[in-house]
Amino acid sequence: MDVSDYMLGLGQQAKRAARVLALSSLSQRNHALLCIAQRIDQQRELILAANEKDLAAAKSQGLDAAMCDRLALNAGRIDGMIANLEQVASLPDPIGATDQVRTMPSGIRVGKMRVPLGVVGIIYESRPNVTVEASSLCIKSGNSTILRGGSESIHSNGAIARCIEAGLADAGMPETAVQVVNTTDRAAVGALITMDKFVDVIVPRGGKGLIERITAEARIPVIKHLDGVCHVFIDAGADLSMANAIAVNAKTHRYGTCNTMETLLLDRSVAADALALIGPELQSKGVEVRGCSETCRILNWAVVATEADWYAEYLAPILAVRIVAGLAEAIDHINAYGSHHTDAIVTNNHAHAEQFMREVDSSSVMVNASTRFADGFEYGLGAEIGISTDKIHARGPVGLEGLTSQKYVVFGTGQVRS
Amino acid sequence: MDVSDYMLGLGQQAKRAARVLALSSLSQRNHALLCIAQRIDQQRELILAANEKDLAAAKSQGLDAAMCDRLALNAGRIDGMIANLEQVASLPDPIGATDQVRTMPSGIRVGKMRVPLGVVGIIYESRPNVTVEASSLCIKSGNSTILRGGSESIHSNGAIARCIEAGLADAGMPETAVQVVNTTDRAAVGALITMDKFVDVIVPRGGKGLIERITAEARIPVIKHLDGVCHVFIDAGADLSMANAIAVNAKTHRYGTCNTMETLLLDRSVAADALALIGPELQSKGVEVRGCSETCRILNWAVVATEADWYAEYLAPILAVRIVAGLAEAIDHINAYGSHHTDAIVTNNHAHAEQFMREVDSSSVMVNASTRFADGFEYGLGAEIGISTDKIHARGPVGLEGLTSQKYVVFGTGQVRS
Repeated sequence: MDVSDYMLGLGQQAKRAARVLALSSLSQRNHALLCIAQRIDQQRELILAANEKDLAAAKSQGLDAAMCDRLALNAGRIDGMIANLEQVASLPDPIGATDQVRTMPSGIRVGKMRVPLGVVGIIYESRPNVTVEASSLCIKSGNSTILRGGSESIHSNGAIARCIEAGLADAGMPETAVQVVNTTDRAAVGALITMDKFVDVIVPRGGKGLIERITAEARIPVIKHLDGVCHVFIDAGADLSMANAIAVNAKTHRYGTCNTMETLLLDRSVAADALALIGPELQSKGVEVRGCSETCRILNWAVVATEADWYAEYLAPILAVRIVAGLAEAIDHINAYGSHHTDAIVTNNHAHAEQFMREVDSSSVMVNASTRFADGFEYGLGAEIGISTDKIHARGPVGLEGLTSQKYVVFGTGQVRS
Repeated sequence: MDVSDYMLGLGQQAKRAARVLALSSLSQRNHALLCIAQRIDQQRELILAANEKDLAAAKSQGLDAAMCDRLALNAGRIDGMIANLEQVASLPDPIGATDQVRTMPSGIRVGKMRVPLGVVGIIYESRPNVTVEASSLCIKSGNSTILRGGSESIHSNGAIARCIEAGLADAGMPETAVQVVNTTDRAAVGALITMDKFVDVIVPRGGKGLIERITAEARIPVIKHLDGVCHVFIDAGADLSMANAIAVNAKTHRYGTCNTMETLLLDRSVAADALALIGPELQSKGVEVRGCSETCRILNWAVVATEADWYAEYLAPILAVRIVAGLAEAIDHINAYGSHHTDAIVTNNHAHAEQFMREVDSSSVMVNASTRFADGFEYGLGAEIGISTDKIHARGPVGLEGLTSQKYVVFGTGQVRS
């Protein structure tokens, strides 16, 4: 079978299914989600058996332990998929509302109606539960989707896909509303990201290499997450016990997440006192500090940072630390070296909080809170498609609204343009 | 000079200027717009002399009359530029507002702040007044911009650029807030649309060929307008006098605009009576009708349409006409052959109006109004960057809000994630 013909077929079917989904009622979409949950619950053995095949292949190919862990399914992870479907079913309808209706001088009334995007292409790496998460969000928002998972999870994704198809059919929805690409041929990705006739948006989920390749080659808009080089700045006069709690939480709550602090900035006037609190806590948790020369004089166990450290997304128990002259230098550092993801200030100074909020050019800017809060659930979005580092369409944590758009609706009584 | 180095320099300067613009007050930005208007008023002779050079070159190269007309400036068109700057200065501030602030269970308060996109790259064809229009919208929305006009208007754009720079300097704003590319080398476009470190969004304005080339090669999000294959559907039981007024206005008010009707669809039950009214009006205005076989039986002067006519954006006094069995067939036709731009129904049937609104997948969907209303000014946006045929970010007429994004702002009192 020719891969581009196969992908074209998926695209055409997805486009047709999208029209049915867009017109379905909220209760139909929710019913489909619950039917899928039921099918997954019934097919646990089949899913785990398929996952065993993937795991065996991964081990024989020498994939590392972290990769195998992401790939592995068990009863708890299947429970998680079911819980995810039920939780998404409980969310309010993201589509259908018409608002901002105003009467214009011509007499026409103009408003905006919230509608699905159409067809969403999702490209992801090893975790098979993404197949369920991504499908649930697309169904809920009235979009059809084409999913391209990692080649190492092809059997697991196939088994999950059959549950999704069956659940859709149970609910009287088109089975082609969710289609999982069943080939590991890389040309399938190339086809998916250039089918602008059939696919309305691409959401890649994975490492920076994957995202960069897709962005470079896509002819379709991409909602993407590149990297998170997040900062905490401890201002002059900050409450140092609060600063300590926030800095330690932002760095050590989880090391591998994109909203983890990677660089700590301190105002010179509080640096010694703040590091006297924070340093030992970090050291006790095994965090390596790479500091500017002043930092290294205060923390004699710190390593000297190089220029590359200020750009680094460690995703590991490593922290860059820099002492700055004050707020302006901190903001300059963040805007120059950061990735415009999430940055926080710890301060008691209202004017400084305001200036930081305005001047830091990041998708989330925080005062007196841990960067770890940059998250769709913590922000009350009810679901998270991902965290966008783009400025277009959706910025920061993206909820269901990120999979919708608004069309203009115009109500007239025979008006013509003069 | 190496073109890619030159463009990189523009990019770096634009990025620096963007920070200053983002922090400027509304009155500073408005003042800059009025200073530019004053400089243009003072330099009318220089601008017209530069335009003469472009016109002479265009004529010697054999450019057609329509192209020369778009290129030509005169006192009235310069008045228009000045009026545009004053009008944009009078609009409310599109940036700075923080809204949707809510308290989360964790105790953090989360809101969204409206901010500029940063650096906007604009690529356009011959009309030199776009240089002023695009600059005014970017300045108002706090964005810096790099403008790449058509090579045939290089002298006109250069003269206008010097007025813009002088006006920015008069107002104490960075002159590099607006930069006009001063080379006709096509490699400049290639550099502009791939400088993702420096440019946040590309807005191309021009013909379909230009837009398709840019979309294919860009590595930066593009807000684009492809084509407008707009429909009017006359429903069974419609008020035929209203239908006649809307159809004739939608087709003949202006032939060359993207929101002009290109295909008229009629319910079979009203087709003969409706065409008895509309046909003679179109004929008297010199509009050629390309009809389905039934249409040709009713209007014996109509030409038989081919399949290509249903896809055609004529931008000319030509209209495709098709008689359909009813609403469902009309919607199918529009979604299959249209360009998802603007489509209208003329109806007295409320359920049909609702169904048309929901099912037609276009950026503007209208009931009992002429498609010609799809316009930023008619929709009350106060300004128009363009009309987007994308579903991402901005759909339909794009106002100043299309040049902004929202960042999350988080206000805590020391919260950490548990």
